[in-house]
Amino acid sequence: MSKQLVLIDCPDAKGLVYNITKVIYDLGLNIISNHEYVDSNSGYFFMRTVLEGSHPEEQFREKLSEVLPGEANIRLSALRKKPIVILATKEPHCLGDLLLRNADDELPCDIKAVISNHDHLRKLTESFEIPYHHISSENRSREEHEQKILACLDQYEPDYLVLAKYMRIFTPQFVKHYPHRIINIHHSFLPAFIGASPYQQAFDRGVKIIGSTSHFVTENLDEGPIIVQDVIPVNHTFTAEGMAQAGRDIEKNVLAKSLKLVLENRVFIFKDKTIVFD
Amino acid sequence: MSKQLVLIDCPDAKGLVYNITKVIYDLGLNIISNHEYVDSNSGYFFMRTVLEGSHPEEQFREKLSEVLPGEANIRLSALRKKPIVILATKEPHCLGDLLLRNADDELPCDIKAVISNHDHLRKLTESFEIPYHHISSENRSREEHEQKILACLDQYEPDYLVLAKYMRIFTPQFVKHYPHRIINIHHSFLPAFIGASPYQQAFDRGVKIIGSTSHFVTENLDEGPIIVQDVIPVNHTFTAEGMAQAGRDIEKNVLAKSLKLVLENRVFIFKDKTIVFD
Amino acid sequence: MSKQLVLIDCPDAKGLVYNITKVIYDLGLNIISNHEYVDSNSGYFFMRTVLEGSHPEEQFREKLSEVLPGEANIRLSALRKKPIVILATKEPHCLGDLLLRNADDELPCDIKAVISNHDHLRKLTESFEIPYHHISSENRSREEHEQKILACLDQYEPDYLVLAKYMRIFTPQFVKHYPHRIINIHHSFLPAFIGASPYQQAFDRGVKIIGSTSHFVTENLDEGPIIVQDVIPVNHTFTAEGMAQAGRDIEKNVLAKSLKLVLENRVFIFKDKTIVFD
Amino acid sequence: MSKQLVLIDCPDAKGLVYNITKVIYDLGLNIISNHEYVDSNSGYFFMRTVLEGSHPEEQFREKLSEVLPGEANIRLSALRKKPIVILATKEPHCLGDLLLRNADDELPCDIKAVISNHDHLRKLTESFEIPYHHISSENRSREEHEQKILACLDQYEPDYLVLAKYMRIFTPQFVKHYPHRIINIHHSFLPAFIGASPYQQAFDRGVKIIGSTSHFVTENLDEGPIIVQDVIPVNHTFTAEGMAQAGRDIEKNVLAKSLKLVLENRVFIFKDKTIVFD
Repeated sequence: MSKQLVLIDCPDAKGLVYNITKVIYDLGLNIISNHEYVDSNSGYFFMRTVLEGSHPEEQFREKLSEVLPGEANIRLSALRKKPIVILATKEPHCLGDLLLRNADDELPCDIKAVISNHDHLRKLTESFEIPYHHISSENRSREEHEQKILACLDQYEPDYLVLAKYMRIFTPQFVKHYPHRIINIHHSFLPAFIGASPYQQAFDRGVKIIGSTSHFVTENLDEGPIIVQDVIPVNHTFTAEGMAQAGRDIEKNVLAKSLKLVLENRVFIFKDKTIVFD
Repeated sequence: MSKQLVLIDCPDAKGLVYNITKVIYDLGLNIISNHEYVDSNSGYFFMRTVLEGSHPEEQFREKLSEVLPGEANIRLSALRKKPIVILATKEPHCLGDLLLRNADDELPCDIKAVISNHDHLRKLTESFEIPYHHISSENRSREEHEQKILACLDQYEPDYLVLAKYMRIFTPQFVKHYPHRIINIHHSFLPAFIGASPYQQAFDRGVKIIGSTSHFVTENLDEGPIIVQDVIPVNHTFTAEGMAQAGRDIEKNVLAKSLKLVLENRVFIFKDKTIVFD
Repeated sequence: MSKQLVLIDCPDAKGLVYNITKVIYDLGLNIISNHEYVDSNSGYFFMRTVLEGSHPEEQFREKLSEVLPGEANIRLSALRKKPIVILATKEPHCLGDLLLRNADDELPCDIKAVISNHDHLRKLTESFEIPYHHISSENRSREEHEQKILACLDQYEPDYLVLAKYMRIFTPQFVKHYPHRIINIHHSFLPAFIGASPYQQAFDRGVKIIGSTSHFVTENLDEGPIIVQDVIPVNHTFTAEGMAQAGRDIEKNVLAKSLKLVLENRVFIFKDKTIVFD
Repeated sequence: MSKQLVLIDCPDAKGLVYNITKVIYDLGLNIISNHEYVDSNSGYFFMRTVLEGSHPEEQFREKLSEVLPGEANIRLSALRKKPIVILATKEPHCLGDLLLRNADDELPCDIKAVISNHDHLRKLTESFEIPYHHISSENRSREEHEQKILACLDQYEPDYLVLAKYMRIFTPQFVKHYPHRIINIHHSFLPAFIGASPYQQAFDRGVKIIGSTSHFVTENLDEGPIIVQDVIPVNHTFTAEGMAQAGRDIEKNVLAKSLKLVLENRVFIFKDKTIVFD
């Protein structure tokens, strides 16, 4: 039987769950799984429901609107593969991992293309029969470079951009084209070691654990809402390069895990933080 | 405002959440937090709801019964401290940890007493002003010993027995007095190393990780429903004794964590497994 | 400057480190890194030393022999890439991960070929320009099948065979051809869930953590010396299939990590266990 | 047989291990365990050796000096319990944990006293028969308060001060009295969330993992050499207070682990970092 996804967030109110499930019940749909969360500080309500059966979206939405506060954010969707585009630079481990997982049908997405400011990853990408666009930043201003990328992206209409170790920083103007739709993997346990060369910073500080953080990209570098983090132990025998190499193992898993959560609509963004129904 | 807890498990049916939340809504109660889970294999439904406000239990239960399947298991309770008794043998780390946490008000329980088959832990226990009962197993049959313990327990009417490294095995007859109400900490990553001397077994096998498992005690040794597990890395330099010492750090945390989950009614038992709403 | 590796294991004796480092010093070599371990139960000594500079192997070995007990096991080698062959069945994640890491020069090995009992992984393998051999087990006895594999392996003279989710069990006769030279990834936290379908077993038992174990293959299934283990948390919402999917993330990292350790000669085998100098 | 510990650090030189082990061999002592490390950036050498047998310290030191560079730092000691004093404020979990472990003979130390700026922890401390000194900071300047503490410490001649959630910051003048001899537990994954209220900071940032860090105290707040770190996962359902409570479980383990490492002379300090031979 077909399935339908309902995502709601709105100010909390007495009877919300009752009112929402009444609509669902009256339409003859069955709840397969249901997650709710109320942020008690702000009194905000979040709900993700998977339904068996389906109902025309417009009418469903209208019925929900009738019982929800005016400012409610209602999203309905079928559980379907979402189009994405991956951006990378030279390092192959995160990109390769996503390509492999995608080939193995682990991720509910359709990788439309890979865009890179270098040509290094072409062979890897094309061996998975994914289009590869080399858009060099040389002899181009940042704005010109981003215009080229935006133009290239247009043809693919991606739901999300995935930065798989894309080592350039986007301007706020670029980010505005994909608000809360760009996922980055940062190679540190944020907010430690913001900015460049986090493994060198970690080495210099002599930490005993290194980490990796996936987050949505906002206008403020490395300050977007965190989706997933993971860590591994290191010790005094690790050089900065050794930390970088060890870190790859968690970078790719953290990126893949966060992408899967986002693609399955398990991630709500609220005030620079995420609510993750995993 | 007072709070009330509703725990329901029953065969799944269309409209369950709607029907339950309708009762809650009609009684004027507000849902603060809500967890639901449907075991898709068995088609069984589980729900834990925290409500703001309260309603007389009998009437509330009756109204819920009207909308639930006949075999539904409905539990209502105030969020209150539950009476427990701890059983231990000679090792102080788990007992001491629970006594410390309790003194620091971390656990929603009232530790009525400690019972041990030795006298070693008396001073530790009494320094926290908890009664200590030394019930020796010497010169007593297993049945006689257990009778003594049961008699001692009777005066305290504990909701749960907590085995904080209690190194004796209860007979099925004893366990029947506290069905799914005895929590044990086993010093291995079950089901690896069932039975005696798990650290020696782990050492002999040359594992690189050791674990700790809390579970409900059933008639079958070390096979009860698992509540919490945790692990730590070891290596070839660890002796069996070194593993045992390292293992204590996770034993006490795992036991305390599972006890807290159970005391907060976050743990459902279903067919030899647990559903944990954490 | 060139580097040389010295690996020694022998019964412990007073003055061993002095005598060995005297030979090294007298030959004008410099110790860059040095690991020693004495197994106190058995009184056995293990040493791994990386030297700057090099000396002809035969003469070096002779000088070491003069100061070591007669039964000492002395291995000298340059730090070089070792030839390996990977065996796989249908699952791409471990194989793909090794191919990616190898292309990224993370592993000090030369992947000579991939052998599989199915043809599924040909495209993936060949996209990395590695020869792929499909040796079907259909219509062949186990012995015939293994003879075909052995014949294929002969042309590559691999130091190690890596079982990257190779889902068949080798006969003791096969294993004898590569004693302590076959590395397997088992998809459970051994010794829990030995044998087939470990994720189903883990699901049935209701564990809260699942694991992955790399080990040397010996005649006894899943009982060879353990090299690396890792775990991830799961909960009641995971199906057996969900566990299998989550487990892939640690399977590939554990296999790659153990392969790297073995290729760098950091792993000694002693009495069904490993000593790992990491 | 008695045991002796040798700790050496000095600029690296060819033949160091040979020369040191020659001295040991000539004195008829046997190496039980041996750790060496060369920091390749700075060319600095570190060694920790446990010997069976013993030799008068003065003569032993002299013989080592003859073969080591002039600036070598040589420390000899018997493996013995070291005197320490614990400082705490109001929170009982770290202090209680150390007292429990000490009573269980887990830590090679002699806890001489507990000093606190409040009287809250007196009963807990005294139940373990340890002297408790309440030295209030009220109506005293920072300097006066620290003078009082120093005077109190003098009678105990502690090797180390352990700050078990001591919530005041020492002046550089105080720290100079115990250079690299004060161990602190910071309730965050340093260098993230330096300073006050790290759990509140972690909550505000929406991290998915929280940590705990033990470090030596230097003149710069929270910037001393890190000894041990550990982390636990959190999610959007955690309040700042919930994070603080969850964090206690790792705070106490991290503090105890680092104290054990320091007491066993396994920790070298070099340029704001530690080398830990564990």
